[in-house]
Amino acid sequence: MADPVDDVHALIEAARDGQPRAVARLISLAESGLGSRRALAAALGHQSPRAAVVGVTGPPGVGKSTLTSALVARWRARGERVGVLAVDPTSPLSGGALLGDRVRMHEHATDPGVFVRSLASRGHHGGLAVAVPLAVRVLDAAGCDVIVIETVGVGQAEFEIAALADSTVLVLVPGYGDAIQAAKAGVLEVADLIVVNKADLEGSEQVVRELRMARGHQPPAEDRWPTAILRTAAARDEGIAEVVDAVAEHGRWLAASGELSGRRRARLRAEIEAIVVERVRAGLDGNREVLDGLADRIAAGEADPYSVAEEMAREHLSPGNW
Amino acid sequence: MADPVDDVHALIEAARDGQPRAVARLISLAESGLGSRRALAAALGHQSPRAAVVGVTGPPGVGKSTLTSALVARWRARGERVGVLAVDPTSPLSGGALLGDRVRMHEHATDPGVFVRSLASRGHHGGLAVAVPLAVRVLDAAGCDVIVIETVGVGQAEFEIAALADSTVLVLVPGYGDAIQAAKAGVLEVADLIVVNKADLEGSEQVVRELRMARGHQPPAEDRWPTAILRTAAARDEGIAEVVDAVAEHGRWLAASGELSGRRRARLRAEIEAIVVERVRAGLDGNREVLDGLADRIAAGEADPYSVAEEMAREHLSPGNW
Repeated sequence: MADPVDDVHALIEAARDGQPRAVARLISLAESGLGSRRALAAALGHQSPRAAVVGVTGPPGVGKSTLTSALVARWRARGERVGVLAVDPTSPLSGGALLGDRVRMHEHATDPGVFVRSLASRGHHGGLAVAVPLAVRVLDAAGCDVIVIETVGVGQAEFEIAALADSTVLVLVPGYGDAIQAAKAGVLEVADLIVVNKADLEGSEQVVRELRMARGHQPPAEDRWPTAILRTAAARDEGIAEVVDAVAEHGRWLAASGELSGRRRARLRAEIEAIVVERVRAGLDGNREVLDGLADRIAAGEADPYSVAEEMAREHLSPGNW
Repeated sequence: MADPVDDVHALIEAARDGQPRAVARLISLAESGLGSRRALAAALGHQSPRAAVVGVTGPPGVGKSTLTSALVARWRARGERVGVLAVDPTSPLSGGALLGDRVRMHEHATDPGVFVRSLASRGHHGGLAVAVPLAVRVLDAAGCDVIVIETVGVGQAEFEIAALADSTVLVLVPGYGDAIQAAKAGVLEVADLIVVNKADLEGSEQVVRELRMARGHQPPAEDRWPTAILRTAAARDEGIAEVVDAVAEHGRWLAASGELSGRRRARLRAEIEAIVVERVRAGLDGNREVLDGLADRIAAGEADPYSVAEEMAREHLSPGNW
């Protein structure tokens, strides 16, 4: 049997040649255990990433997949190679339905210049914080010019995932008016672009107007990117070129302002933190019996969770034991 | 100035006497920094909790607050003292709107037998995993017979919070049919009770029928609680007594089957883990400059995130350094 690390090097070579199966296998490695990921990261080395990384996020039902698919078509028409990571913060209630929606991306399934992969969170949320950056590095090594990270949802977790991108696109539709009213300022802080999709629905101009007005109320700052607010009808391919142009313009602003290196440094810091936390969790999982014993001591009224956590860390989690 | 730990003991005494302001201040402590929480946990000691802890979760707009409020009224009529923790997984998009909805609970604001408090996630999700169990312990010490943890959402995070309860109630309405179809099995695994609210809406009997049918398809097991599926019209106070009865029945089943001690042990284990991870995160935050230097080495192509994470843990995160 071949040495798995040799295998990784061979797969990376094949991915650089644009072989989709090699890319798919490497992304699977990015989702697997710590040992595989460590070997993959070491084998990839760390070239400074070339690709523009674009996060697309928003509530269910706003047409993110349709928009992403239309954007991919536009990038392809401009000769760009594109990778799409469809990230599912797995939910017992919404998981299946969301995955079904992703079928739209299949129109690009036979294009050798497009890689599409789904990543699921499989249990605890932290898994995506380590898997996504590594999958981005795989797609970058495979020669992608643009990498889209598409997440579904409106929660903290989705925005954390969106923060793994250089540019974050928030997709909304008319009818989320109340939520927008309530949280305008927050949304404008988080999103580099806001796309009001389904422009044919009533109220879409109104939503755009309100968002632009809210943007106008932000204190002016020379070094701040003014959130781009655009209208699309992705299903009819309307307004897509404008989004592609705005993403490119944001990319130029990121580079010129120095914000790009700052964002990428913050992402690397977050990735290191996520790996450390993952190792700690693995260390805890490996001490299940000790944990049970400590839990029983709390239940018996002999200790409190904080003193017990200190004991756990001191005696069972020194880095040598991980 | 009084010793803050003496203060905590005095507050706990006042909370045991049922003083709502003392309870409120202690719950604020449960949300604050590690030092305060450690002192609070030590001062509370750890009596085995007496209260039944009931999680109420579900998508926005299904009437969770109205249902919770109706349940509280019913428990009060039966002479029970009730605590409600309204947990907001803070989201830039939905935060404000969800909080607004909580105003309904104000009908109980003047009842000395009801404590209502909101907990927000403030930044990273892990914060709730340590704050909620401690807040539950405060309410238990304050003599609550029932403690409701109400969370908004349909994601992994909300179910993790719901898992901090003895009994989990999932609230749905007709119209979430597709999601239910897609994830029936998962929902039935997670929820101890499913309440189909807004029974006056078209399709509610159909949803109940489908869920019961799905429940019937589960492999039979003697030691399994068959998810209770109930219909309510909380705004008209219909079906509420049945939910209260089903929660009580589930509580009896938990005790008789031995599942209660198993669930509580798992929760204590999860709480210890959350505290350890929080301490590691605090240790990382305290080494920001080291992290920046490591991130720069990755960006310069001199190292990969995994080797750097090991170095970080080995040299800067031994438990003595936290």
